[in-house]
Amino acid sequence: MSFSYVSHLYCPKCERTYDVDHIHQPCECGSPLLVAYDLESMRQKVKRDVLREREANLWRYHELLPVKHPEHIVSLGEGMTPLVPMPRLGRKIGIEALYMKDEGVIPTGTFKARGAAVGVSKAKELGVKQLVMPTNGNAGAAWSLYAARAGIRATVVMPVDAPELTRKECAIAGAELYLVNGLISDAGQIVAKAIREYGWYDASTLKEPYRIEGKKTMGLEIAEQFSWRLPDVILYPTGGGVGLIGIYKAIKELQALGWVDGRMPRLVAVQAEHCAPIVKAWQEKKRESEFWPNAHTVAFGINVPKALGDFLVLEAVYETDGCAVAIGDEAILAEQRTVAELEGAFICPEGAAAFAAARKLRESGWIRDGETVVVLNTGTGLKYADLVQVAPPVLEPGDSLPMRE
Amino acid sequence: MSFSYVSHLYCPKCERTYDVDHIHQPCECGSPLLVAYDLESMRQKVKRDVLREREANLWRYHELLPVKHPEHIVSLGEGMTPLVPMPRLGRKIGIEALYMKDEGVIPTGTFKARGAAVGVSKAKELGVKQLVMPTNGNAGAAWSLYAARAGIRATVVMPVDAPELTRKECAIAGAELYLVNGLISDAGQIVAKAIREYGWYDASTLKEPYRIEGKKTMGLEIAEQFSWRLPDVILYPTGGGVGLIGIYKAIKELQALGWVDGRMPRLVAVQAEHCAPIVKAWQEKKRESEFWPNAHTVAFGINVPKALGDFLVLEAVYETDGCAVAIGDEAILAEQRTVAELEGAFICPEGAAAFAAARKLRESGWIRDGETVVVLNTGTGLKYADLVQVAPPVLEPGDSLPMRE
Repeated sequence: MSFSYVSHLYCPKCERTYDVDHIHQPCECGSPLLVAYDLESMRQKVKRDVLREREANLWRYHELLPVKHPEHIVSLGEGMTPLVPMPRLGRKIGIEALYMKDEGVIPTGTFKARGAAVGVSKAKELGVKQLVMPTNGNAGAAWSLYAARAGIRATVVMPVDAPELTRKECAIAGAELYLVNGLISDAGQIVAKAIREYGWYDASTLKEPYRIEGKKTMGLEIAEQFSWRLPDVILYPTGGGVGLIGIYKAIKELQALGWVDGRMPRLVAVQAEHCAPIVKAWQEKKRESEFWPNAHTVAFGINVPKALGDFLVLEAVYETDGCAVAIGDEAILAEQRTVAELEGAFICPEGAAAFAAARKLRESGWIRDGETVVVLNTGTGLKYADLVQVAPPVLEPGDSLPMRE
Repeated sequence: MSFSYVSHLYCPKCERTYDVDHIHQPCECGSPLLVAYDLESMRQKVKRDVLREREANLWRYHELLPVKHPEHIVSLGEGMTPLVPMPRLGRKIGIEALYMKDEGVIPTGTFKARGAAVGVSKAKELGVKQLVMPTNGNAGAAWSLYAARAGIRATVVMPVDAPELTRKECAIAGAELYLVNGLISDAGQIVAKAIREYGWYDASTLKEPYRIEGKKTMGLEIAEQFSWRLPDVILYPTGGGVGLIGIYKAIKELQALGWVDGRMPRLVAVQAEHCAPIVKAWQEKKRESEFWPNAHTVAFGINVPKALGDFLVLEAVYETDGCAVAIGDEAILAEQRTVAELEGAFICPEGAAAFAAARKLRESGWIRDGETVVVLNTGTGLKYADLVQVAPPVLEPGDSLPMRE
C-alpha cells in the first residue's frame, strides 16, 4: 500500500499531462491543471475500512491526496469538521433532513485552511522556499499561517478593502504583507510581475493544482459522515468555486473506488445578486462565465467577478443536474440571524447565502419532499463581526433586570 | 450499559449530597457542587475500546457526562480538538515533546463551548426555560448560542469593557443582553437579584455543577489522544480555573476506571502578573486565594481577581506536584507572535501566557529533560484582534514588489 496514489497532473482543456515531482503552474494552454490518481490500483489495495481508526483530520484520506511522503505534511489538525443537523431551521423551511457542514470549526476559521494545508504541504515537498499570492483576505491568512509552520516565506498582496482581521493574521504569521489601492485583479498583476521577475512560487487560486485537493476533502468527509450514502443536494457559496470543483472531483473519485452508493448529489452554486456570473452563465446555458462589472456584496468571500475555473464549476453543475442561485444581501443577513437564533450557529454571510438558497429552492419545489440537503458554511461569523450591529442597554451597578413576560 | 453513569451531586467542602434530577445550585454551605459517577459499575461494564468508532466530539464520552437521555443533547459538534505537535517552538525552548491542545478549533472559538454544550444540555434535561449569567464575554457568547439551539431563553450581563465581539455573538443568538458600567462582580450582583426575584436558572460559573463536566472532556481527550499514556505536564491559563479543576477530575476518573497508565500529570496554573491570586496563594502554601485588587491584563479571559473554585484549583496543583506561574503582558504578546511565526497558529493571549510559562519552567529546570508537555490554548486569536497592530505598505496598481534577499 502506498501513502499516496497520486499519479500525474492533467489539463482538463487540452489534455496535456505533467508529472507531480516538479513545479508546474497552469498548463501551457493557460488552463488550471488537475491532479490524477491511480484509482484502479487503489481500488484493489485500499478498503474504506482503513479509515476507521485514523485521526479525525483531512490527512486520514492521504491515499487520495498529492503528498507522497508523510514527513512533508504541514498540519494544524484541520478537517473532519462537524456535520451538524439543523432540525429547527429545517422544519421552518420544509427540509426535514437539513445539515450544515461547518467549516468555521477549523484552524484559521475558514475552509481556506484545507487548500492551504494541502497546497503548502505539497509546496514543501517540491522544495519551495518563497511563495506569493493575491488574496481577498481569508486565503492569504491561511496560506501565511501554514507557510510559517512549513518554514516557507510568504508574500501576500490584498486590496485595502479586504477585511482588516485577515491582515492581522498574515502579519502575525510573519508574512510580507502589502495592500493595494485597488481590486484583487490589481493585486494579481503585481503578483504576476514578481513571479516573472523573481521566480517565486505562484500560490494564486488555480495557478497551483493542489489546493483543489485540499478542498476536495470536504466531499470525502461528507460521504464518510453520511456512512457512504450520499445526500441528494449540496449547496455551496461560490466565488472562485474551488470547493465545488473539489467536492465534485471527490465524489467522482469515490465512485471510481466503489466506496459510495447512490446517485451523485445535485450541486448548487450559490452567488450574491450583485456578483452572479456563474448564475447568469447557467441561466443562459453557457459553459463559461463573463466578467461581472461593479461586483459587490456583504459576502466578501464570493465577490469574484470572473473565476479562472468557471468552466469547471459549470461542468459540475450541469453534470450533476444541479443549478445556480443568486441571493440578495438583505436576505443573506436575515438568514445569518435566523440560523443563529434557531440553531445557535454564528455563520459567515457566504454560508448564510447558501442557507437562503436552500430555502428558496425548497419553496420553488426544486428541492423535493424528503430530500437530504447539505449546506456548506465556509467560515465562522467571527471573521465578519462588522456585519453585526448591537446597541445593548447599559445598566449601573445595583440596577435591576426587567422581568420577561 | 447505561448512556450515563452519573450518580449524584456532592459538596467537596461539607460532603452533603444532592440528586441530579432536580435543579441544585451551590451547596447550602455555599460551595460549588461536583458531579459523581458510579465508576465501579462503569469499570465493569464499559471498556475504553467502545470509543473507537464513535464520532470525534465530546459526546463520545457520554458515560462520563451528566446527561441521562441522548435526546437532551444540544451539540454543534464540539470537542476532540486537535492535539498539535509544536516541534519548532519546542526545539527553541528545549522541550522536544511539546504539544498544543487547540481549543480555538471549536464552535464559538473558545473552550467555553464545552461548558456551554454540557451545561445547556443538562439544563434542558432539567426543564429549564430561562437562564441568566454574568460574563466577561466568551462564556456569555457560548451559552447564548447553545441556549438558542436548545430553545432556552438567555439573559446575559457583561461589563462595558468586555470584548465587543462577544456582545455580537450574544445578540445574534437572540439573547437578552445588558452591559454594566462596572466589573463582572457588578454584573454578578445584578444577576443574583434577578435570580432571587424571578427564579431564573443561575448559569454563573460554578453556581451550576455541569459546566465542569464539559470542561473535563479536555482531560479525557488528552488522555485518549496520547493513547492513554499520560503526559508529564499540562499547563493551563487560569482565571476561574474550571478547566483545570475539570482536567484533574477527568484524570482521576480515568484512573478509577483503569483506563490510563502512569502518573498523574503535574498541573500548572498560569496567570497574568497583574492578576495572580492563585500564584500568590501557592507561593504562600495556602489552600485559598485572596481577592486581587486592581487586576488587569491583556489576557481578558484570565482577569479574575478571586475565583469561587480557587480551593479546588489549588488542591489540583498541590495533589499533582504542580505549580503556579505568573507571566507579564509583554511576554504574553511576544509569545503569541512567536507561536504564530514558528508554528502557524494564531492563538489567544491566555494560551500565549501558558506557552510563556512552559518556556520559563523549562529554563528554571522545573520541566525536565525529555518530558512530554501539553499547553492548553483556550481560544482562537481571532477573538482578540485588537491586540495585533499592523501597518502594511500600500501599493498602487502597476507597482512592483521589492526583491527579498
